[in-house]
Amino acid sequence: MIDIDRIRAETPGAARRAYLHNAGAALMPAPVLEAQIRHLRLEAEIGGYAAMAAEAGLLDAVYDSVARLLNAGRREIALVENATVAWQMAFYSLRFAPGDRILTAEAEYAANYVAFLQVARRTGAVVEVVPSDASGALDVAALERMIDGRVKLIAITWVPTNGGLRNPAAAVGRVARAHGIPFLLDACQAVGQMPVDVRAIGCDMLSATGRKFLRGPRGTGFLYVRQGLLEQLEPPVIDHFAAPWVARGEYRLRPDARRFETWENNYAARAGLGCAVDYALRIGLEAIEARCHLLSDRLRAGLAALPGARLRDLGPDPSAIVSFTLDGRPADEVVAAAERAGVAIGASDPASTRIDAERRNLPVLVRASPHYYNTEAEIDRLLELCEGLTAR
Amino acid sequence: MIDIDRIRAETPGAARRAYLHNAGAALMPAPVLEAQIRHLRLEAEIGGYAAMAAEAGLLDAVYDSVARLLNAGRREIALVENATVAWQMAFYSLRFAPGDRILTAEAEYAANYVAFLQVARRTGAVVEVVPSDASGALDVAALERMIDGRVKLIAITWVPTNGGLRNPAAAVGRVARAHGIPFLLDACQAVGQMPVDVRAIGCDMLSATGRKFLRGPRGTGFLYVRQGLLEQLEPPVIDHFAAPWVARGEYRLRPDARRFETWENNYAARAGLGCAVDYALRIGLEAIEARCHLLSDRLRAGLAALPGARLRDLGPDPSAIVSFTLDGRPADEVVAAAERAGVAIGASDPASTRIDAERRNLPVLVRASPHYYNTEAEIDRLLELCEGLTAR
Repeated sequence: MIDIDRIRAETPGAARRAYLHNAGAALMPAPVLEAQIRHLRLEAEIGGYAAMAAEAGLLDAVYDSVARLLNAGRREIALVENATVAWQMAFYSLRFAPGDRILTAEAEYAANYVAFLQVARRTGAVVEVVPSDASGALDVAALERMIDGRVKLIAITWVPTNGGLRNPAAAVGRVARAHGIPFLLDACQAVGQMPVDVRAIGCDMLSATGRKFLRGPRGTGFLYVRQGLLEQLEPPVIDHFAAPWVARGEYRLRPDARRFETWENNYAARAGLGCAVDYALRIGLEAIEARCHLLSDRLRAGLAALPGARLRDLGPDPSAIVSFTLDGRPADEVVAAAERAGVAIGASDPASTRIDAERRNLPVLVRASPHYYNTEAEIDRLLELCEGLTAR
Repeated sequence: MIDIDRIRAETPGAARRAYLHNAGAALMPAPVLEAQIRHLRLEAEIGGYAAMAAEAGLLDAVYDSVARLLNAGRREIALVENATVAWQMAFYSLRFAPGDRILTAEAEYAANYVAFLQVARRTGAVVEVVPSDASGALDVAALERMIDGRVKLIAITWVPTNGGLRNPAAAVGRVARAHGIPFLLDACQAVGQMPVDVRAIGCDMLSATGRKFLRGPRGTGFLYVRQGLLEQLEPPVIDHFAAPWVARGEYRLRPDARRFETWENNYAARAGLGCAVDYALRIGLEAIEARCHLLSDRLRAGLAALPGARLRDLGPDPSAIVSFTLDGRPADEVVAAAERAGVAIGASDPASTRIDAERRNLPVLVRASPHYYNTEAEIDRLLELCEGLTAR
């Protein structure tokens, strides 16, 4: 059981508003905030390098924490500036030849898709979108039928930025493993709201952020790369940390996933990330997932019962990201009205998941994303607000 | 005149130790620390996106501050995670063909040199080192003689990480301009200790960090790219911020230098960076440079007069980075003894500037780097300490 009262007491922003914007950036718990402030004060007192040395044990343990979160080895973890950098370091390390195929999903995130397009233009590889099944999730049978010797990468977003979807990552992993195709999973919206097990999923690379459901600092992200694969990957860009300069004409890539890092880092943010991961692990990801389900189910049920509200979510087993529209009310108007009423939610633009949005002819969506620290009463406040907006 | 007492009162770490490690990471002034803490607290109170919106004006003004610091346009500035990322985004945007020549300097930093080697291996370009003149600085006449139609880049470090050198950046810029060759200047150790004027230097691209002489946060850096050049550069990696996804098969690069950024950032660190730049600008870079000169001259004079101490600095007009060794005392021993005596200095490994280090047969160097907030008395404490270590 999650001790909601204690957790809310430890969440400085919880008393202020009904904060249902965790798919954007969640509220940090006090220990995550304090870990950052403590490190920054130490830097100001004794200098950045001495502060790093003074907290070396704690900073090093962040690798263990992230590894534990993902069921990975610590040598398979790189800590980087954000989820985009994590994803880029993995994706741009792969080599493609003309005609090579990159398979992705309909609700793929814009950041990733433009990178596909850039590499396709550079190399002659082609980007192909696996169709969705009747539920709206990636169609695993269709994926299986698309596989041939030219498929050099499967890269999908597990939980898209809107649409409530939870793509069948482990089923995709089984296809990828069966055919020996590298599988890059964007888990940006997944980590922190559900258990993540890279071995069970069978992904080769996984990228994620600290600031969303993990409740960590902005400007933090991490990358998992399976040991057997990472040794074959040369990062698209390197510095002397990733690849020490061992002789005048020679560098040697680090043997671990830190070959995807740079030497310089924001250590205050890293301390906060470690604290956030440990915080989530202490509560337990199964318990977190169950409560996210409870709250988002309540919200979906309420919206489904509301004339004038249209749920825009997909898939048989939706995530804690609830997407909807209210008839006659542009999303921005709904977000602003909620803000005035003390409810934080967000809007999601069609350009962030263009292929899905065009297929479904989606407008800008309202996006409400509860987390385990929210309450049923907060969900009901949002529902009442929506009722008021549709009734007028 | 710099009001040293006021500035030291605003520097939390100044009273604690004689902090002469500014080439590593300088002591942040209190306003820089507080700007970060204020933003982090705001994030914890109202969420990351709302905090960004609440401080949007301040955060946007960081571009103006950095532009003013460099005498650039704000559209020519990208704010990124560190100096390495800044440099990488510029360097890896350039295209090279087999036989193309990259010219660099003897004391080039390891991070940059391994990137040269990677690109040389990928493209068939060659890396060539411009020799130094009798003073130890890059020999501009030699550079001029090396120019031909295959030189596609001149990339040097202005103030190397050790060796006290200040390379003749503006003279290199004149050669680059005369021949229409892109000029990438690593100004990591220069910004914050001296005036920097990209127009006067004639560089096309300049990378720098926040944490060194600018006294900004760790995990901050910035890149200048001349407007006329940046429009021709496609970043090595992109996301939907750098290159919005405008149609299913199409992205469009931003028209400004922010095409080298990612969407997600650490805004607390960015707020701190802006504060640090403004702080330096208020004091004045000419005044800062003059005082850095005063203090480093005093240190060099004292070391020159000390039997058993060997200055390892180069060039006619040395920077505030003072490099030396004490006979019979490994650098790490000197650094540790200084630490025990309340004096913060650093050590610099030959692998960080391998070509210069091999040419001069350098061991690990002691590196003492005063800044304007230091005092003559602090310099003298280090000198006394060195005297004690050489006498024993």
